[in-house]
Amino acid sequence: MKKIQIYDTTLRDGTQSEDINLNNEDKIKIAIRLDELGVDFIEGGWPGSNPVDRAFFSEIQNYQLKHARIAAFGSTHHPNFLPENDPNLRSLLDSGASVCTIFGKTWNIHATEALRVSEERNLEIIHDSVAYLHSQGKPVFFDAEHFFDGYKSNPEYALAAIGKAFKAGAEVLVLCDTNGGTLPSEVSAIVAEVRKALPEANIGIHTHNDCEMAVANSIAAVQTGAMHIQGTMNGVGERCGNANLCSIIPILELKCGGAYTTIPREKLQLITATSAYVSDVANMQPFSRQPFVGRSAFAHKGGIHASAVNRLAMLYEHVDPRELGNRQRVLLTELAGRANIVSMARRFGFHLDKDEPVVKGLLNELKTRSSMGYDYAAAEASVELLLLKKLARRGVREFFNLVQFRVLELKDSHGKEPYSEASVRVEVEGITEHTAATGHGPVNALDNALRKALIGFYPRLNEMRLLDFKVRVMTAANPDGGGTASVVRVLIESGDQQSRWVTVGVSYNIIEASWQALVDSITYKLYKDEYEKRKNETDD
Amino acid sequence: MKKIQIYDTTLRDGTQSEDINLNNEDKIKIAIRLDELGVDFIEGGWPGSNPVDRAFFSEIQNYQLKHARIAAFGSTHHPNFLPENDPNLRSLLDSGASVCTIFGKTWNIHATEALRVSEERNLEIIHDSVAYLHSQGKPVFFDAEHFFDGYKSNPEYALAAIGKAFKAGAEVLVLCDTNGGTLPSEVSAIVAEVRKALPEANIGIHTHNDCEMAVANSIAAVQTGAMHIQGTMNGVGERCGNANLCSIIPILELKCGGAYTTIPREKLQLITATSAYVSDVANMQPFSRQPFVGRSAFAHKGGIHASAVNRLAMLYEHVDPRELGNRQRVLLTELAGRANIVSMARRFGFHLDKDEPVVKGLLNELKTRSSMGYDYAAAEASVELLLLKKLARRGVREFFNLVQFRVLELKDSHGKEPYSEASVRVEVEGITEHTAATGHGPVNALDNALRKALIGFYPRLNEMRLLDFKVRVMTAANPDGGGTASVVRVLIESGDQQSRWVTVGVSYNIIEASWQALVDSITYKLYKDEYEKRKNETDD
Repeated sequence: MKKIQIYDTTLRDGTQSEDINLNNEDKIKIAIRLDELGVDFIEGGWPGSNPVDRAFFSEIQNYQLKHARIAAFGSTHHPNFLPENDPNLRSLLDSGASVCTIFGKTWNIHATEALRVSEERNLEIIHDSVAYLHSQGKPVFFDAEHFFDGYKSNPEYALAAIGKAFKAGAEVLVLCDTNGGTLPSEVSAIVAEVRKALPEANIGIHTHNDCEMAVANSIAAVQTGAMHIQGTMNGVGERCGNANLCSIIPILELKCGGAYTTIPREKLQLITATSAYVSDVANMQPFSRQPFVGRSAFAHKGGIHASAVNRLAMLYEHVDPRELGNRQRVLLTELAGRANIVSMARRFGFHLDKDEPVVKGLLNELKTRSSMGYDYAAAEASVELLLLKKLARRGVREFFNLVQFRVLELKDSHGKEPYSEASVRVEVEGITEHTAATGHGPVNALDNALRKALIGFYPRLNEMRLLDFKVRVMTAANPDGGGTASVVRVLIESGDQQSRWVTVGVSYNIIEASWQALVDSITYKLYKDEYEKRKNETDD
Repeated sequence: MKKIQIYDTTLRDGTQSEDINLNNEDKIKIAIRLDELGVDFIEGGWPGSNPVDRAFFSEIQNYQLKHARIAAFGSTHHPNFLPENDPNLRSLLDSGASVCTIFGKTWNIHATEALRVSEERNLEIIHDSVAYLHSQGKPVFFDAEHFFDGYKSNPEYALAAIGKAFKAGAEVLVLCDTNGGTLPSEVSAIVAEVRKALPEANIGIHTHNDCEMAVANSIAAVQTGAMHIQGTMNGVGERCGNANLCSIIPILELKCGGAYTTIPREKLQLITATSAYVSDVANMQPFSRQPFVGRSAFAHKGGIHASAVNRLAMLYEHVDPRELGNRQRVLLTELAGRANIVSMARRFGFHLDKDEPVVKGLLNELKTRSSMGYDYAAAEASVELLLLKKLARRGVREFFNLVQFRVLELKDSHGKEPYSEASVRVEVEGITEHTAATGHGPVNALDNALRKALIGFYPRLNEMRLLDFKVRVMTAANPDGGGTASVVRVLIESGDQQSRWVTVGVSYNIIEASWQALVDSITYKLYKDEYEKRKNETDD
């Protein structure tokens, strides 16, 4: 098994994403999780370019990392300075990072057009910068910027540039597809040429996703002999992003016949959670279709797939989701079947037979309600609640009943936003609770009032948070022909420390649709807690 | 130049995405745009599996497509039927589609485990199904399900299966990576073997993105001789999605040295708009980092990149975004726009100079409000109104002023839907009008009450209809962290006999956001009528 170094640059190149802004605290949190995942190098930033990055390098020294080494990023020395007087190289050495990664120009047009020095002078700058850092006892990784474009336009010059870095002591020559325009067939051919020219050198790869090829290009380079991959969590990065380590690591671990090793194998099951954590800290909506780690990555919707995957998962799954800490999900649609309902009931401790009337009854109800616009494929928790309600005679209880709610919106010529107030009257175990609350908008006011009414009876509702709220207008389902009277579907995602769940509501009235999803969401939390409690009591 | 057929399956395999639900109207709209883009085939659905798909095939016949041919999808015949009595094959022929695409098992374990017939019987089924459709005069495309997994486990059987389809008259043998687990190096090797075994056959490729390799695998297949690619717009599809045609088409057109042609070259610049349109109809958040067509695809954030790209775009851009109908964005600068504003003002009879303060003022306001979530690219009418308001001193009038509105929602344990009532007090030319109305939900009630208040002053509002109402929750823009207090954007499309216009509102309160868009919509109608009237008087 060949060891492939994993070099994470989420904290440096990743932050070039248009929609990412990380402060120092965010960066430290992410670095700790990356270390737990077991990556080899964490590129923390460019200490020569800004103070946030310098703060990171100084603070991360307070943490005992288990596995990863910290790398600092910078450029070759400025044409006007000697290496030993260059402030950028100085800041790399002063950062306290274990590794210095510097980029240099290997495309001749960039030397003359961007750096504005002669081709010869550029080679000298590369050599002297690497040699100086090396002489100071630091391992140096050389990022060969625009290497593939450079090679395509002037192969001799591109090879000469990395040859200089190698001669000066660079430990890894990282070939960069900076503009992301290179195809895998070109990467394979060019990496092979580099290996021929510099058979002793360690080759790394750094790709961008402008052709949706960043992962493919990284794997192609490894298959041609590269031993070091630079990328980011979830593929974040400038323009279309960097190579996605959340795909690259599983591919090398699971899909290459055991030829390669990356992170410690037992850590692979942390990758789904690590991906989610980075999205969360960076305040980015996770991409549900993301390979390996996405919420939909192992979700089966089609009737044929759903029934086959129940029998033998490998028929429609190329890897076992549990190896990645992800899970299989068989979505409930009109097509999918009774077996799903039986296994769903089992999760809540009810043992049903496929042929019981309650199973068929639920399927029929799901079908009718789906045609009204309820999206049960997305809202599994609402399906589970429908099932539990049908099983009510077997001891499932109602947690609360609505007596009345009222929502008031008031806006006058002075106010920028309307005043929102909701009052809720509910009955819980024979006791009527009547509360009122304001909120950011009518749905939030209703949410606040309902929680206020219930919290005394069910204090664990404090653990629950509403994570996402989606509204879709379904023009076609509208009997009155569009406009403001359209039917809307609301999906609400909620979570507590243990899990996340999605519920649905449908109405031409957005308040009513939100209310349905809200009530389902809270009820689901209460059922879930009660079931856990019962199970623990039984286990004891 | 070799012609590569583009076969779009957004409407069939794409709808297997967890978060996509298209009704027939949506499907027709998307098909028309795909035809305008110039794809060769549009797979409309599986007529044998559900009534929505059947409705599509019957309705699409009312449209004169310019370029694309419609394909219907289905399976090989059921083991218990003769082909001529098989309802699934019948529904393909009855659909009226120009092409029949049927899938069959080419992985032996799927024949025995999923289809539950002998390996020999499965080959017979493939042959007889293709031969029957062929005998009925239909071109048949054979989707070789799980071909790559099948080939890896039993190459002789996999080749025998597609050999049967070829012999029976299949026009294209489409090799499917159904589970998405195959790497490009494997695709190249296996496609080469298939070409050796069946040198006369036309080879197609159908890939899934479970290894983030769907695009790379499609291109690898073409480079090894495939002449037909199946994929979806934006890569939507089951689990991690299908091969993304929005990347594949630009790669083949722009990145392969002119070796291939796909859609008519002048249509390539429609691809960004088509991608956005499909996301919009499917109510999916567009993926900003999407290659070629994404909002961030040519966005430069890094200081070095941003300044270099201003000098010479090719330094950091691998293709020219204008070829795709996309554009370069240098972030944190606002260079574009003045000329647009000048020409917009001209449409309303105002002659402005590019350097007037009002132009710069409007640009600044648009920038601020865009960062709050106002989508002015979609809502041009709201931009025009902002301009007209800035020009108020030049004689543009206010049509009405809000004094107060109030919206009440009431629901009790008896009512299924809440009672919705709105009262509106507005001032028009010094007269206060106070009205109330009920409605289907709060926004509809508000809409009804406002119109009732204004109709006596502006009878031409009777001509105006609200055509569409869209709501998008923008989690990222929410200062309070998600849930029911999220910021929402409302887009309202309105129309009269002459034109259609779109307006926008943004708030964490959906009533307020709807109110903003509603007021803009009505105001726009009134401005428009007044301007028409003035122009006609001048012409007389």
